[in-house]
Amino acid sequence: MQHPNAHFMRHAIALAEKGRGAAAPNPTVGAVLVQHGQIVAEGYHTACGQPHAEIECLKDAAGKGISPENCTMYVTLEPCNHYGKTPPCSRAILEAGIKHVVIGLQDPNPKAKGGAEFLRENGVAVETGLLEEECRELVADFLTWIQTPYPFTTLKLASTLDGKIATRTGHSQWISGEESRKRVHELRKKVDAVIVGGGTFYADNPQLTCRLEGVERQPLAVIVTKRLPEHPAQFTLVNDRPEQVIFWTNEKSALSETASKLQSLGCLVISLPEHDGKLDIAAGLTWLRQEKNCLYTLCEGGGKLALSLLENNLVNEFQLHMAPKIVGDQSAPDIFSGRTIATMDEALRLRIIKTELSGEDVILTLRRQEM
Amino acid sequence: MQHPNAHFMRHAIALAEKGRGAAAPNPTVGAVLVQHGQIVAEGYHTACGQPHAEIECLKDAAGKGISPENCTMYVTLEPCNHYGKTPPCSRAILEAGIKHVVIGLQDPNPKAKGGAEFLRENGVAVETGLLEEECRELVADFLTWIQTPYPFTTLKLASTLDGKIATRTGHSQWISGEESRKRVHELRKKVDAVIVGGGTFYADNPQLTCRLEGVERQPLAVIVTKRLPEHPAQFTLVNDRPEQVIFWTNEKSALSETASKLQSLGCLVISLPEHDGKLDIAAGLTWLRQEKNCLYTLCEGGGKLALSLLENNLVNEFQLHMAPKIVGDQSAPDIFSGRTIATMDEALRLRIIKTELSGEDVILTLRRQEM
Repeated sequence: MQHPNAHFMRHAIALAEKGRGAAAPNPTVGAVLVQHGQIVAEGYHTACGQPHAEIECLKDAAGKGISPENCTMYVTLEPCNHYGKTPPCSRAILEAGIKHVVIGLQDPNPKAKGGAEFLRENGVAVETGLLEEECRELVADFLTWIQTPYPFTTLKLASTLDGKIATRTGHSQWISGEESRKRVHELRKKVDAVIVGGGTFYADNPQLTCRLEGVERQPLAVIVTKRLPEHPAQFTLVNDRPEQVIFWTNEKSALSETASKLQSLGCLVISLPEHDGKLDIAAGLTWLRQEKNCLYTLCEGGGKLALSLLENNLVNEFQLHMAPKIVGDQSAPDIFSGRTIATMDEALRLRIIKTELSGEDVILTLRRQEM
Repeated sequence: MQHPNAHFMRHAIALAEKGRGAAAPNPTVGAVLVQHGQIVAEGYHTACGQPHAEIECLKDAAGKGISPENCTMYVTLEPCNHYGKTPPCSRAILEAGIKHVVIGLQDPNPKAKGGAEFLRENGVAVETGLLEEECRELVADFLTWIQTPYPFTTLKLASTLDGKIATRTGHSQWISGEESRKRVHELRKKVDAVIVGGGTFYADNPQLTCRLEGVERQPLAVIVTKRLPEHPAQFTLVNDRPEQVIFWTNEKSALSETASKLQSLGCLVISLPEHDGKLDIAAGLTWLRQEKNCLYTLCEGGGKLALSLLENNLVNEFQLHMAPKIVGDQSAPDIFSGRTIATMDEALRLRIIKTELSGEDVILTLRRQEM
């Protein structure tokens, strides 16, 4: 059964989305005031350091000459109860005279929580959990930031309907259609770093830039490889923007002549711990967040790196761009490889949160199963 | 731009769907009468031999005491213009005094067409082509029947996200979830025959029955294999309902001792022509339609038979049940195999007409690209 007032919360969720990116590292939040079944004021958290959604909503009401006393406030996340960059929203709501507040998700941030309790103690009727799942998805990035040392990581891969990423001769251009390839540039626009494996770097010599009009800031480019390029001048990335290029490699390679050459060109070479011969990607992601302030990263493959990220629960969102094509050749390379399992229960399990058509392709958005 | 009255046609399409199955081999058709922007009467073709949708709609109007003269009729398919089992609808519309008819798809049946022209010649304003694509999809089965000698064939396969149908050890239960497996029984309920390849028959020993409550008629079971089972009593299908089991095989096997044994148990053994060592499935489908009056068939794999059907343009609709699981093993069996292509342009291309979530899985519905 759908809650009869779920559409108010849904509107607040849509408002919150407008703040994504600028709000970071704060959560994206939206709020509306409802009077006699109508939304009469709205607000969202526009940028870190700016007023929270609830305050923006109260300002909107004031500007319209609406008294909030007879309104219900719908807010996607529990109003904060602490003095951060701004005073607590719980207090502002109480002072505005609001008698009824509906909350999507309770604040998972131990520093800020308690807003609902404060309001209840002061006589405000508080409901929680309306569209809780959607409100949780809304702040999936924020949850990653407060619960892990990693950036929010999106994995994007393209494959055919039968899970192939090339023909047996290695021909791969193009798997996905024009529309889906444009979507990749939109993804790159929103992230602080793009990460690829060595195989992809050597095979495709990629630029990893966002080539949408009007975009100035380009994401960092991270290449994960134990084998550093001996002839760096052959690679577009190293030629075009060396100071934005980061190699994650093992200790031995990081101390090599090749590493020095890359460093002298302006690239960073970072040594990651190795476990069972595999680079510790989690350590790399922690470094990226701590040292480079990366909040959003995008991994564009290949399949080996992607699988390693998925197996280590480092992927927050997986966008699979699937083209309605069939290669039909067992010898053509698979989107994922490197695992050996005996029964289907051992398969890696994800959950689909969205399917959408993109030109001729379908884009599946997936998350980890347990989230 | 959406036509402002498209929703009337959409309603007619939804009505038409109610007749699917019973209407065969006639097309599924729906019609509504609209007066002052409101649907005032409706009808659809309920079963072969029964009145056409237009007549049902006029009867509905008469029963409600509505005069059709001031109404516009929306009908998904051009009204017929010939005396078949029923008199021509074009004449009935004219006689009812309707001045305005909106048609979705022009009749592709040479025997029945001309209804629009007849109406225009007699002073009725006729529009054609409203939601033409949707109206064409609606009668995709009918188009197959009049344009080809084959049944309307649905291909259903299940795979993981990475195109696998089992682990490397052959373990496959289950790939798709409970909900999707229930959908398979709904598909079986609607078809006259279920077709599987020999590999699937020997590996799974399937029943191929519809196990939904209240279903009495079971589809025929067709097994495509050059190697007939030497110990038929091992197979559920042969034990349980031999008179509904058909083997498609080559001439040599059809004349073998094994074939005689199967025939003595009640099974049919049909010899198909061979081309380059491959059985001519098109000939089999033609036989199924002509000799067994099969209008709908369902192929449930395996990948070799499925690919052969797709390559020969014998699949009218492909339902891919995809589980959000990753096997990640290049040695695990692929959903399709047997092709060798050098470049991506040689990939078999389909088009996605629908995506829907089914429990944890996603179901993609695809058709041939050119349709």
